[in-house]
Amino acid sequence: MNTLVICSGGLDSVTLAWKVASEAKLAGLISFNYGQRHLRELDAAASCAQQLDVPHDIVDLRALASLLPGSALTDPDIDVPLGHYQEQSMRSTVVPNRNPIMMSIAFGVASARALDAVALAVHGGDHFIYPDCRPGFIHAFAQMEQQALEGVHCPQLQAPFVNGSKADIVRIGYDLKVPFADTWSCYAGNDVHCGRCGTCVERREAFQLADVTDPTTYADPHSAIPSQP
Amino acid sequence: MNTLVICSGGLDSVTLAWKVASEAKLAGLISFNYGQRHLRELDAAASCAQQLDVPHDIVDLRALASLLPGSALTDPDIDVPLGHYQEQSMRSTVVPNRNPIMMSIAFGVASARALDAVALAVHGGDHFIYPDCRPGFIHAFAQMEQQALEGVHCPQLQAPFVNGSKADIVRIGYDLKVPFADTWSCYAGNDVHCGRCGTCVERREAFQLADVTDPTTYADPHSAIPSQP
Repeated sequence: MNTLVICSGGLDSVTLAWKVASEAKLAGLISFNYGQRHLRELDAAASCAQQLDVPHDIVDLRALASLLPGSALTDPDIDVPLGHYQEQSMRSTVVPNRNPIMMSIAFGVASARALDAVALAVHGGDHFIYPDCRPGFIHAFAQMEQQALEGVHCPQLQAPFVNGSKADIVRIGYDLKVPFADTWSCYAGNDVHCGRCGTCVERREAFQLADVTDPTTYADPHSAIPSQP
Repeated sequence: MNTLVICSGGLDSVTLAWKVASEAKLAGLISFNYGQRHLRELDAAASCAQQLDVPHDIVDLRALASLLPGSALTDPDIDVPLGHYQEQSMRSTVVPNRNPIMMSIAFGVASARALDAVALAVHGGDHFIYPDCRPGFIHAFAQMEQQALEGVHCPQLQAPFVNGSKADIVRIGYDLKVPFADTWSCYAGNDVHCGRCGTCVERREAFQLADVTDPTTYADPHSAIPSQP
């Protein structure tokens, strides 16, 4: 299975790239610049591609930032919410239809390159706020692509973490010796992980639950991880 | 129904814009620059938006041209095939996954703007070579978006011409007084319609079948329209 991995540079998708490289053939990584304030993650994706010695495409979608306003991830006027991921306030991190857009482009690229599969690192912790990370969406997207690429070349869609937790991903990554310190989660857009935004809290919690030492430098390493609501 | 129309500037999507403007509320047009050699069509889309007095967004996807090679529409090294649309050679005009990419972006934009619908001008004549224009794809795409935007805001997908012919569209456009001369179909990328590429042949044929005077200037207006295979 010659597989293209959609890689943000985060812990989940970098672990997925290492997992694919260990189990199948990793054809390359594809990342997206959609005007996210945490552009730092793209450096982490580039670093992953370099370490795994595969090609890396960064698709320039900055034209979308002004067309998809209203998300704290792309709009400098909206603050990134702090606290636990599973809170109502985290809905401001939704970029509407982000995954269908990125996945459609990845499928076009993988089809043009006659690759066997596109892999995506969505997981159970994403389900609460992001509808385009849920199993129902993953299934519907694969069905849609079978129609869209009928008679052309339709890669498979792989989402091996979709029913797992982020702690499961940390355990898998630990076994694969993924360099977690080189991955980037924080949405705040600073030089080190803030430790307090939704995705930092989720990251810290996943290492705790997996009982794996967290090598991340956090600006605020001592703030409490709120218990789940 | 406040509706965003995906408008290439071609006869089909310009007629759709006029149809929506006459029956519902036309929120605006969205077009895509994906490095197509017939960029001239985007001027036609802009002209349509101006005539109907609605906003027009042109999304810059030129980054995709090098990532989706192998199509005569984007690759200057591949000749645009001449002759009838329903021929094997026309498959070189397929840009893999083009419609899912454009439609996903349009859905993101329409969701962010809380619009009621996204409308697309695919029709029966497209079915032979373009899988992402067929009714099965349209249905699967709408299903996918319902999952992707569950709990956010999911517009409807409208494709009113999907079971009709291009001649039907010409008849509808004639009744709506669509300025057909201001629409652009030709794939060849010159200043006037060539009259011989697949989409020019289809355009000429549609006017003949609809028994409507064709106002288009063709470089080669006298070449025979091949009969369907």
